[in-house]
Amino acid sequence: MSTYQAPLHDIRFALHDVLGAEALFARLGFTEATGDIIDAVLDESARFTETVLAPLNRVGDEVGCGYDQATGAVTTPPGFKQAYAQFVDGGWSGLASPVEFGGQGMPHLAAIPLKEMIDAANLAWGNFPLLSHGATEALLHHGETWQQEVFLKPLVDGRWTGTMCLTEPHCGTDLGLLKTRAAPRDDGSFAITGTKIFITAGEHDFTDNIVHLVLARLPDAPAGSKGISLFIVPKLRVDRDGHVGERNAVRCGAIEHKMGIHGSATCVINFDDAQGWLIGEPNKGLMAMFTMMNTARLAVGLQGLGLADRAYQNALRYARERLQMRSLTGAKFPDKPADPIIVHPDVRRMLLTQKALVEGGRVLGYHAASLVDIVAHADDAGERERADALLGFLTPIVKACLTEWGVECTYHALQCFGGHGYIAEHGMEQLARDARITTLYEGTTGIQALDLMGRKTMQLQGAGLRVFLGMVEAFCQAHAEDGALREFLEPLRAKAGEWQALTLAIGKRAMGDADEIGAAAYDYLFYSGYMALAYWWARSVAAADASSQPQAFKDAKRETARFYFARILPRTLAHKAAIDSGAASLMTMDADRFD
Amino acid sequence: MSTYQAPLHDIRFALHDVLGAEALFARLGFTEATGDIIDAVLDESARFTETVLAPLNRVGDEVGCGYDQATGAVTTPPGFKQAYAQFVDGGWSGLASPVEFGGQGMPHLAAIPLKEMIDAANLAWGNFPLLSHGATEALLHHGETWQQEVFLKPLVDGRWTGTMCLTEPHCGTDLGLLKTRAAPRDDGSFAITGTKIFITAGEHDFTDNIVHLVLARLPDAPAGSKGISLFIVPKLRVDRDGHVGERNAVRCGAIEHKMGIHGSATCVINFDDAQGWLIGEPNKGLMAMFTMMNTARLAVGLQGLGLADRAYQNALRYARERLQMRSLTGAKFPDKPADPIIVHPDVRRMLLTQKALVEGGRVLGYHAASLVDIVAHADDAGERERADALLGFLTPIVKACLTEWGVECTYHALQCFGGHGYIAEHGMEQLARDARITTLYEGTTGIQALDLMGRKTMQLQGAGLRVFLGMVEAFCQAHAEDGALREFLEPLRAKAGEWQALTLAIGKRAMGDADEIGAAAYDYLFYSGYMALAYWWARSVAAADASSQPQAFKDAKRETARFYFARILPRTLAHKAAIDSGAASLMTMDADRFD
Repeated sequence: MSTYQAPLHDIRFALHDVLGAEALFARLGFTEATGDIIDAVLDESARFTETVLAPLNRVGDEVGCGYDQATGAVTTPPGFKQAYAQFVDGGWSGLASPVEFGGQGMPHLAAIPLKEMIDAANLAWGNFPLLSHGATEALLHHGETWQQEVFLKPLVDGRWTGTMCLTEPHCGTDLGLLKTRAAPRDDGSFAITGTKIFITAGEHDFTDNIVHLVLARLPDAPAGSKGISLFIVPKLRVDRDGHVGERNAVRCGAIEHKMGIHGSATCVINFDDAQGWLIGEPNKGLMAMFTMMNTARLAVGLQGLGLADRAYQNALRYARERLQMRSLTGAKFPDKPADPIIVHPDVRRMLLTQKALVEGGRVLGYHAASLVDIVAHADDAGERERADALLGFLTPIVKACLTEWGVECTYHALQCFGGHGYIAEHGMEQLARDARITTLYEGTTGIQALDLMGRKTMQLQGAGLRVFLGMVEAFCQAHAEDGALREFLEPLRAKAGEWQALTLAIGKRAMGDADEIGAAAYDYLFYSGYMALAYWWARSVAAADASSQPQAFKDAKRETARFYFARILPRTLAHKAAIDSGAASLMTMDADRFD
Repeated sequence: MSTYQAPLHDIRFALHDVLGAEALFARLGFTEATGDIIDAVLDESARFTETVLAPLNRVGDEVGCGYDQATGAVTTPPGFKQAYAQFVDGGWSGLASPVEFGGQGMPHLAAIPLKEMIDAANLAWGNFPLLSHGATEALLHHGETWQQEVFLKPLVDGRWTGTMCLTEPHCGTDLGLLKTRAAPRDDGSFAITGTKIFITAGEHDFTDNIVHLVLARLPDAPAGSKGISLFIVPKLRVDRDGHVGERNAVRCGAIEHKMGIHGSATCVINFDDAQGWLIGEPNKGLMAMFTMMNTARLAVGLQGLGLADRAYQNALRYARERLQMRSLTGAKFPDKPADPIIVHPDVRRMLLTQKALVEGGRVLGYHAASLVDIVAHADDAGERERADALLGFLTPIVKACLTEWGVECTYHALQCFGGHGYIAEHGMEQLARDARITTLYEGTTGIQALDLMGRKTMQLQGAGLRVFLGMVEAFCQAHAEDGALREFLEPLRAKAGEWQALTLAIGKRAMGDADEIGAAAYDYLFYSGYMALAYWWARSVAAADASSQPQAFKDAKRETARFYFARILPRTLAHKAAIDSGAASLMTMDADRFD
């Protein structure tokens, strides 16, 4: 079975040494988020996830969720419900939610390590509380006062959970096609009718009530995505004064059988004249939905990170224990029957790839989380605006790259186990199967790429990229005299210039042919992700050097950064070549000629 | 559910138009292997795999194999046994085996499309007859006359199946560590005692008898890999005159629960003073084992190809049917609610990646199969020697690259389905899970890389590479005046020179530090794989142009080749940069500092 130990040392390094979290929190007015409090939260997060959630990861996979056709009820795997009760009792649910609605009012950045740990310990379980946060965000930003009063508090304290009901059988990415209808009623509510699929935590036995946030069409709504509204549809009817009534006409019609996350209930939810309440403006549902989705996209990125870290921990342990063959340069442990496989260069390649992507990805993801706090709480409007542009630019990168790297790292980790990695009892194959969903839900990697290239770069004229390039340049200038950093700063600066030129070149081509955007998107996404990681690796080395970390830790950061620059960053060469080749090689072939 | 249609058109193109199979067979003396016969074999192979095996693929995954602790018996999934009976009745088992032992005497190359089709249709099922071929090869090359008489015929006609019993719990790659013992008995047989794991088709209900080929140590055998001998250990005892007796002391102790290929029985096999017969020389078992393993490695490469092709077929169908969003350049099907997703550049990128890797990989794999025939049957000793060197060089490339591309293609295919790809009912996630084993068994990708770099390139001083580069140069010269091929020949020739220089540079560095071999191996493997594919894509364009294929087919080959050169071949840039960076970034970090 795979084990999990929360990587507290590296988490603290990312938070404090690289991102200066404590000073940031003080500046943003989080007076409660002192170093001591953050430390206590981290320690308790580790304890909860290691001892309560991690041991349930395998049973969740093996037993999965059950579905009762007769009642539509969903049963979660053994222990999942009790773990959720502990989660609620511990006050974890509202860690970063506003105090006025019962939350703990911590910064987003201070809560994000808990998220990483939950996902590493038990991704399937983590999907039940996950969407409560999206629902909370939507209610906070778009809900009427009574809606906040009635629905927010139980979501924040975890008594109820939330969902996002977007997808229908014929529409996923293309929400403009959705058919679910909302008919107004005399009491101000709406009758919601339709079928939603792929609803994570759409039904379960953790809580009595479930708050569905449902996209539907009002009568006479314009066609397409401009005619979509958002509704609150609770499983148990709730009136305006908070009275919880009888069962609403919401029923789980089936749960999906999936490649992984078997312990997570992925539901078909049927609404049959169910009572719903409009949230936000009519026909402006997509905007409210994006409030939920951006939160969820960053969160899914963290899922990829968590799984990658757990996979790496186990691969590293195995590589130190498994004895097989001798080092090519002569026996390293002549007293043993063979050397541990960590002596072999190719095993090191797989391990260091994981280490570089996990530790670099952690800073990348945490930095994005810090921007959420800055956007919400910085005094200076200019700072908020820049942070918002950068957050918009980084959100698809964090979502897509951390999840794709999660797939890659679980791949390498399994491979380190050889044939044993394919066997269920070692737990490595579960991590690989679980990781695979993260590149699909909340927008596939292709959709993130299009969001980055089309909207965040072309439409917004590179606003976020400019902020990032400014950070790179400021960092390079600040350390211009630091000879120990030169090996990283020179390639970083050179590649940053290339990144900018590449962006301009795509923009130029796209003016003549919109398909150039789609043709460049995927490779531009990864090019950007590797560039962002190069920046954070260089900064990590600088931060380690400037810190009071042990010398061995500083050395390990520098050596991992060297590996990253030598053996991962060159992937940008292939991505650049693909981008430069343009759309022709993709678009010429007639759709009939593909087979 | 995923569907399968044997790609007969492209298989025939690879065999006849690119590889000139009919003329080759005539030259090698296969007088029976006429065009008509090959065509009939292909048509019947397609019928059998499409109608008998493919429909059992999903039930194999869902039901899997059963194991009875009380008796050690293994039950295969519903329908598997009956399908095997049809396979035997159809004479498929010995298609490429010698006529004198009951086979059909067809060339290896003529039988390889059947292998591809079986694996595409039902990989788990295909693993039962698979290892009979390895056992057949070992007996043909190393067996005594009575052993051939007694064991070969039932293996060739499929009445019995074979296994390869190599791995033990503490030794996989490092067979020198193996502990299974063989004690001589008075009757000339040996008593075999030990535990083998990961034995594919080690126990099942297809046939009465199973012929295990087992690596074990004689008393007083030298330590390590020089003290390993190979034994024939049948499930039912067989004496020298072929009489089948009582049950041998061979028992299945468990079957593994795996990520995929649930329908394939992966067994723990316990030998407890079981009767065995030495095959080949004492202490020379590894050599005999490699006879089996090289056959198996090429066969596993074909598994990756088959799965990739099936995944691509389904992704292509889905991409033509699924309506979602409009083309960035305006609606292409304004009468439909949305455009089929094949209009989107990024979906085309995923599809064309699969098409380029599948069709190019097919020629690469088939060409290697043709070398098996040349090595065995060419009149000219020089030709045999060159073919042998090239086959040795290509075997790790075919095994590793076709399987890794199988993983990649099933990844892209699943991704084309979006969230639906993650759901079991579409069958795409099964293909991805099944494909994952192919990069692990019969030597992981890392082991293939080391075989290519260390043994086939360094130790053998690039003999195989030189033959391949000679083919590239001859092809470029032969088409020097062909303007229509220039777009491919110029980069091919340039990269071939780079390939050669890269090989020399690694060799030079390796003289000073053996770890440079291991550090370069993985990237050199892929660099070589992409170069080999570039050659075969250029040749495919030339072959299509020179053929009587329809113009649309010729255009598709050219457009896919363009895609390959523009968007896949540049991956060599990243691999080259990683190789050039040397071993330092991998080897410096102390094993204690990885976490």
